[in-house]
Amino acid sequence: MALSDDADGLGRRPANHVPLSPVSFLARATRVHPGKTAVIDGERRFTYAQMGERCRRLASALQRLGVRPGETVSVLSPNTPMLLEAHFGVPMARAVLNAINVRLDPPTVAFILQHGQARVFLVDPELAPVATAALALLEEKPVLIVGGAGEADDGYQRLLATGDPLHLLQLPADEWDSISLNYTSGTTGNPKGALYHHRGAYLNACANCLVFGLDASTVYLWTLPMFHCNGWSHPWAVTLAGGTHVCLRKVEPRAVLGLIARHRVTHLAGAPVVLNLLSQLPEEERARLEHPVQVAVGGAAPPSAVIARMERMGFRVTHLYGLTESFGPATVCVLPPEIVAAPLEERAAFTARQGVRHPMLEESTVLDPETLEPVAADGQTLGELMLRGNTLMKGYLANPAASGAAFAGGWFHTGDLAVLHPDGYVEIKDRAKDIIISGGENISSLEVEEVLYRHPDVLEAAVVARPDDTWGETPHAFVTLKPGAEDRLDAAALIAWCRGQMAHFKCPRHVTFGPLPKTATGKIQKYVLRRRASGAGTDEAAGER
Amino acid sequence: MALSDDADGLGRRPANHVPLSPVSFLARATRVHPGKTAVIDGERRFTYAQMGERCRRLASALQRLGVRPGETVSVLSPNTPMLLEAHFGVPMARAVLNAINVRLDPPTVAFILQHGQARVFLVDPELAPVATAALALLEEKPVLIVGGAGEADDGYQRLLATGDPLHLLQLPADEWDSISLNYTSGTTGNPKGALYHHRGAYLNACANCLVFGLDASTVYLWTLPMFHCNGWSHPWAVTLAGGTHVCLRKVEPRAVLGLIARHRVTHLAGAPVVLNLLSQLPEEERARLEHPVQVAVGGAAPPSAVIARMERMGFRVTHLYGLTESFGPATVCVLPPEIVAAPLEERAAFTARQGVRHPMLEESTVLDPETLEPVAADGQTLGELMLRGNTLMKGYLANPAASGAAFAGGWFHTGDLAVLHPDGYVEIKDRAKDIIISGGENISSLEVEEVLYRHPDVLEAAVVARPDDTWGETPHAFVTLKPGAEDRLDAAALIAWCRGQMAHFKCPRHVTFGPLPKTATGKIQKYVLRRRASGAGTDEAAGER
Repeated sequence: MALSDDADGLGRRPANHVPLSPVSFLARATRVHPGKTAVIDGERRFTYAQMGERCRRLASALQRLGVRPGETVSVLSPNTPMLLEAHFGVPMARAVLNAINVRLDPPTVAFILQHGQARVFLVDPELAPVATAALALLEEKPVLIVGGAGEADDGYQRLLATGDPLHLLQLPADEWDSISLNYTSGTTGNPKGALYHHRGAYLNACANCLVFGLDASTVYLWTLPMFHCNGWSHPWAVTLAGGTHVCLRKVEPRAVLGLIARHRVTHLAGAPVVLNLLSQLPEEERARLEHPVQVAVGGAAPPSAVIARMERMGFRVTHLYGLTESFGPATVCVLPPEIVAAPLEERAAFTARQGVRHPMLEESTVLDPETLEPVAADGQTLGELMLRGNTLMKGYLANPAASGAAFAGGWFHTGDLAVLHPDGYVEIKDRAKDIIISGGENISSLEVEEVLYRHPDVLEAAVVARPDDTWGETPHAFVTLKPGAEDRLDAAALIAWCRGQMAHFKCPRHVTFGPLPKTATGKIQKYVLRRRASGAGTDEAAGER
Repeated sequence: MALSDDADGLGRRPANHVPLSPVSFLARATRVHPGKTAVIDGERRFTYAQMGERCRRLASALQRLGVRPGETVSVLSPNTPMLLEAHFGVPMARAVLNAINVRLDPPTVAFILQHGQARVFLVDPELAPVATAALALLEEKPVLIVGGAGEADDGYQRLLATGDPLHLLQLPADEWDSISLNYTSGTTGNPKGALYHHRGAYLNACANCLVFGLDASTVYLWTLPMFHCNGWSHPWAVTLAGGTHVCLRKVEPRAVLGLIARHRVTHLAGAPVVLNLLSQLPEEERARLEHPVQVAVGGAAPPSAVIARMERMGFRVTHLYGLTESFGPATVCVLPPEIVAAPLEERAAFTARQGVRHPMLEESTVLDPETLEPVAADGQTLGELMLRGNTLMKGYLANPAASGAAFAGGWFHTGDLAVLHPDGYVEIKDRAKDIIISGGENISSLEVEEVLYRHPDVLEAAVVARPDDTWGETPHAFVTLKPGAEDRLDAAALIAWCRGQMAHFKCPRHVTFGPLPKTATGKIQKYVLRRRASGAGTDEAAGER
């Protein structure tokens, strides 16, 4: 976008048009809250002045290492100050941050490093073995820096030492420039790299502050992986708000409750599995919180029973929905006044909806995926959830075909099957690939799971399609029971219980007990379960349809 | 900005790049809060669904009247639903809103209508005489519509009736398109028309929500004129938050307190004169508020004594600074933790600073106006307050020379003389034209006023330069006393009191008692006082220097 020195004197000028970039949030925080604690990591503390200086050093050091504008800096790390600083320092070098999922295997990490053309690779010591194994698979290797775990003299500290503490806070040349590169979890085939722009990161951070109530009094506990959609844009949002980041390597429920009490945490976020872990603690450790804690949950629809348990503990749950392609949150389940006043169970059930568009997204709606016509707002007609607005990715790196398909017809196609309620709220019924079609009837695997979660002995449940000669597909439930429940509940009993709760054709015909396979972000890997459901199961029982 | 269908599939597309415009806020509010009360005006209520429909009708009706994109629609009205709706309906017709100061005389109104090339002129019945007199002075007249005061059948209602309730919510073609045209108060010469862009309006509305804590629970009382910098972007901000607008024709302190109690108002804003009116109510009417009310004050530095009185009543005062050219707020006095914990008097004194940049402004600082070098951050060295960022106007309509001067060197020149404190906070010492130079020493008129306000008998005070043969200039104070104080305080006594409070050369040498001339927005008209100070005064006393 050219800044015009036009004849009428009304064009864009450097004084009145600046690229939107989250880098500006750090610049402001260091000026407005210099002495405030920006980061807590174990016993370490950094003020905003210190965080600003470390990010300036990082940006400068990366440039001195030879990183040029638009080049990629990859990071493999749990939620440490290093990864948080990379959210600012890398863009301040006009480079692109690529935070990699810490649970990936070396070949996938190698694929991402190669595909993203990483120039520098920042690795936490805990993950050095994976990183080393991945690098061994590459011909062209990025510069490896191991550190960031708080040692006084490690690779990351030495890197920072080479940087200029007064390095200029550089904004991107254009707000459409790439700020980060996030690979989708890709259940089939190679992962795709979603490229984020500075503009969207800036705007979704603002939206997070508005929806989640982040302000200078916020103490944000990092239960959500920062490598997941850049932590839903929260590294930028909490910094915009001038709040405090509390780093966390590992979500361990007792430790989480301890940190909440110690630092008076006000906000945290995560996948439903995080809530589930907290709500499943033994009664005596699950004492009500001494202050209200806002929890944003997303990544999958939280079962209402889990929401209800969390609310009883004193958490206030907001349900967000989004994808890697949408900078994290794209919709939010805003509770209307009549629901806020409703009994807990009703409120929890409503909260499971995906809701309405996040404030800075332009539109979220349900369309027929073929015609792109709106579906009837009747809460019944199934269509595809579609998004449009400034908080969607540029596209997939080096994959114009996939980008074109994702944005076909002027909408981002989420791949999620949803209904539109008369009040305009969207509710996802299933991933397009997770819907079960049995005897020509659609069965929402989420609906069946919702029922299973209500059973007092069920800890976790996932339902997938099982090939069936008669019906085409039938629901197959994979269930983890609470400790001690194995003795009193078997598959037949659970199926019988389901038949008392919903239409018989929707009930699982097979049940398998045991732990569920999960991704690094706590999503249940349904493709693994589908493979199991297609093969021979164990501990199964067949029910009547 | 062209949307590129580029080869790498990573360019801007309609699905991931939408012009930033406050019109999107109304679109979202009508979807998320359709049944919620958006507007209260006396006994009238409009839900967000109704407000949305009225704005759609207005946009459609204006287009049917022949208003084309980029053309101007002027409004002369107190804070009514009509003026609020015009903040959305006019931009939704891709036209430019020109809200005119209701206290202007017909020739100035005529100048603005002509200069802004108004096509349609919406006028509240109360102001029809002024509008008619102004139109009589014009050869080419806009279409006059009188109404909006709540009558069932007036010109505005008939206009809305011609509009399509399902009119599309149109965004601008480009976010740099003009959304509004605001004329500066212009103490000398003709007023200049500051053109706002959609981008800045969007961003400053977000910033207002962040700084002022606006959310869906907000009930905002319209004590601030909407014609003043588009009400500091609050029509857009409160709608973004999904709060409730409470309209108000006239700031009458008893009525304001009544509305605060009746509607449980949470937020209001205004010039210091509004605070002063509220804080000067008799003791028995000034009972502490039953709930906390946030007050944003701006337009002039509030005397700390006034802030202290307001806080004692239960108001929480935030000091904002801005100009017509900056969409309203450009800086905010964020209170550091040690000040929040400090005694009220100290907190009030700190609050009088202009502070740090508003969240979406890029930079606010104090520079030497000639060299544009930063002044020393010592709280002493005087320079000019300069601004830079996305919440500054495009420029002045049809005045490229003035626009060029305002933005010279890549900064917006505020014309305010300020110091930079060691903590990075800016504090205005005076308008460039209000500084008093006496015997070669600079005297800040604000500093003298601050002392005068501390006197228990002083209601209002303003200090200007008085030509003096010996000293060049000396301070001349114009003072309004509280009722009953005339008998016990004369000019000599007040001057003597000042000499006990500050350096003698800064003390007023002349004092004139009586009411102070003010602009429509409550700013004291110092140019009028300067004229009086240059002529013969009455009720004066001369003090020793």
